[in-house]
Formats: sequence, C-alpha cells, structure tokens
Amino acid sequence: MSEGSTGNQKLEVCFTPGSYHVYKNDDAIVVIIDILRATSAICAAFEYGAEKIIPVAKLEEAKEYKAKGFLVGAERNGVQLEGFDFGNSPYHYMNDRIKGKTIVLTTTNGTQAIDVSRDAYKVVIGSFLNITALCDWLFSQNRPVLLLCSGWKDRFNIEDAMYAGAVVNKLSEHKDFYDMGDSALAAKYLFQTGFKNPVRFLHNSSHKERLAKLGLKDDVKYCLQVDKTSVIPILKDGALVKM
Amino acid sequence: MSEGSTGNQKLEVCFTPGSYHVYKNDDAIVVIIDILRATSAICAAFEYGAEKIIPVAKLEEAKEYKAKGFLVGAERNGVQLEGFDFGNSPYHYMNDRIKGKTIVLTTTNGTQAIDVSRDAYKVVIGSFLNITALCDWLFSQNRPVLLLCSGWKDRFNIEDAMYAGAVVNKLSEHKDFYDMGDSALAAKYLFQTGFKNPVRFLHNSSHKERLAKLGLKDDVKYCLQVDKTSVIPILKDGALVKM
Repeated sequence: MSEGSTGNQKLEVCFTPGSYHVYKNDDAIVVIIDILRATSAICAAFEYGAEKIIPVAKLEEAKEYKAKGFLVGAERNGVQLEGFDFGNSPYHYMNDRIKGKTIVLTTTNGTQAIDVSRDAYKVVIGSFLNITALCDWLFSQNRPVLLLCSGWKDRFNIEDAMYAGAVVNKLSEHKDFYDMGDSALAAKYLFQTGFKNPVRFLHNSSHKERLAKLGLKDDVKYCLQVDKTSVIPILKDGALVKM
Repeated sequence: MSEGSTGNQKLEVCFTPGSYHVYKNDDAIVVIIDILRATSAICAAFEYGAEKIIPVAKLEEAKEYKAKGFLVGAERNGVQLEGFDFGNSPYHYMNDRIKGKTIVLTTTNGTQAIDVSRDAYKVVIGSFLNITALCDWLFSQNRPVLLLCSGWKDRFNIEDAMYAGAVVNKLSEHKDFYDMGDSALAAKYLFQTGFKNPVRFLHNSSHKERLAKLGLKDDVKYCLQVDKTSVIPILKDGALVKM
C-alpha cells in the first residue's frame, strides 16, 4: 500500500507556528517540537521532578508570575533573561529546587507554539529525550497527529524538522495506519539523511551556530540524546503535567 | 569555509506564500516556484512564443480580461475552468494561438505567490525547464536570492521544495558566495535525496497524486525535464516578459 494516500489517520508536519492555522485539526494530537531547547528542557524538568510547568507566550505574564513568587524560566534569543530563575537550558532544570514545584516558562519559540495550538484535542511535548515513549503513545491513541515545529521566529528550523522526521519515521512503521502529507514525507527524508550523525548534520544550521556562539555546545549534545526519559508532558487546563 | 554562515549574499527558501512576510527582503531577487504546473507552463508558453503573461491572483480579474478579449488561462484545484482558453498544463501553451500574444493567467497557487512578492527587487520564474539559465543569471546578479515555493493552498509542497533544493545545490557550487538559511539547507538535502529519480521520489506526494487522478501524468513528466529552454520570465510593470 502507498503510504501517501490511503492510511486512516492524517500525519502532518507544520514547520512553523505561523502556519498552524493551515494545518489546524481539532481532532488531532499536536506534538510541540522545539529541540534546541524548550521542549528538551521541559522533558528534562519533568524527569528531574518538576510537578507542573505553566507555559506563557508573553514576557509580561512571566513577570507577573515571578512577582507572585513562582519559579520562572525566561529566555529570548538564546539567553536567560535577568531577574528570572532559569533560562532555556535543560541543565538549568537538573537541580533540587524544582522538585515538586510548579514552574512558569516563556521562551522565544516553543511557548509560542504551545500558545497557538492550545485548543487542539491534546497537546504534548516531544523531544529526542522522550521519542520512543511518545511515539508508542501516539500510535496507541488512534488519532490524527500534527507535529508542530516551533521554528525560529516563524522561520523553518532544521533541527525541529529533523525531529519531526524522526517521529514520522517511527510512526510510518505502521504503514497502513497513517496518511502522510508532503511535509511529513519531506521531514522523514530529512531525518533519514541526517540521523546517522545528527551533530554533524546540524553543523551548518543557523540555531546550532547561534547556541555555539553562546557557549552552549553541551546543550546541543544533550538535546540530541535519545530516550533519556519516558515522561510525556501533556497540556491540561493551561499547564503541562506528566501524563 | 562553512556554507552556513559566512557567505556574502543570503540564499533563503520560503516554503509557502503565507510565510513570505517572514523572509521578505526588498533587496532580494525572488524566484517563483510552482513546478506542478504554473511556473513550468509559464516557461513553456514563452518558449512557444508568448509575448507577455499577466498573472492575476483573483478569478474575477481573469474574467474581466476575458471579457475584454484577452486569451486567458484559468485553473483551480488542478482543473481548467470553463469559459477560459487554457488551464495550467504546459501542453496548453504549445500552439500557434499564443505566438506574439499577451496571455492572462490565474492559478490555484503560482499566481498567488507572484502576487505576494510583486514588490521585491526582481521577480523571476523558475522551473526545471529553465534551471541552468536561471541559476547562471542569479549568480551573475550578486544579490540575495529568495526562492518562493507556491506550495498547495499555503501548505508545504514536496516538488516545489525539491526544485528549490536543486537551485540551492547549483548555487552552492559558489560556496564562498551564498549564506544559506536552514530552509535552503533542508531543500538541498531533499533534492540530493530525490534527484536521481524525481518521478519515483514524488511518487507519494499529494499533488502528483492529485494530477494522476486527473489523468495528467504526462504533465508531471514534462515538468520534471531539465533545460528545455533558456528563457527567464521576469515581472515588469505587473506582467511577465522574457528577460
């Protein structure tokens, strides 16, 4: 059977939050992808004991939460903002301060993607760190899947697309089940080109370079690790919790 | 030298007209891409003697031109609309009726892409049919290049992305010259995966399937041929003419 047309459930990739309205499907499970680094950091935070993460798109909201005494992570353009507890690095969330706590998080791209998709049937967080657990769960749900890349300020971003392709690749083991759009096929090809050596594959990417300039090479390596956790963060009543 | 960062001129790919505002650069040459089939048909029309092509985004405008006695091509959803002279097939334009004539054209995606980019420094038409002539000219211009894929109703489209990748691949022979964004890198990888057998590569694509259902397999084969013409259509005062 062709994987391109006759599957049961739509499997689509949306490369930027700005295109979400075109792919929007109220029946779909939306997977938020911001590999470098928001969704990787969120998975790490839950793995290290966070109870709840409230994603907020606007900095003003983050400030209000900070004033109320919350632990708040805030990043713009790759840098932790002054006056906040954490930035966007997974390493920031590997400490005892977060155990059992609610954390508020705002980032350049990832929390914007969560914001546009918050009315979807379910919204979950994807990263290489939880990829197998996530894909097994997605397949078990018997639902359309929309992989939403956070991109970089509404531009296409190669590491998010490659991760989307990794998920498509795993889900397309169930060939009779998913009906892929063109962007899903393209992402899969991209993953198949890059997966043998993702660090090298991303060598020329704009954001990896941006992070390297900020001295964050270790973050990149961490975020490209596979199956470090089986946590699947899911949005419930506006906050992310462990599924 | 890394091709990712230190070139002189920006080389970007925008995968849909709806994302154009994010990549917009008034100094750039914009290449309009709608491989199946508008930009292929436009190249064919000039090769077969058309004098001028007036692209219009709205059907109403096309009807007004028709009422004034113009030859008008009109396509929506892959099908030629009733009451017009041509559709979107390159074969429609291979006849003596068009020699020396001005043609008006409206299509589902391609003419929309021309519409959003019409204020760019220069707007030209790209297809596999004129790829070498186009790339040689682009390189000679010493300008940023923005490859604008028409997509399908603002969705990512694999054949347009593959063609963008073919152009990036050719231009990146001048490694020191272009500074590629992530979408350009991704398109190049996609082209490198697919170019050995593009018909097979596109086997699962949504639009190729759409055209196959409409009995247009010959159109697809024609549009994937390389260097059938050295014509480069360029937008001047709202109309496409031979450069």
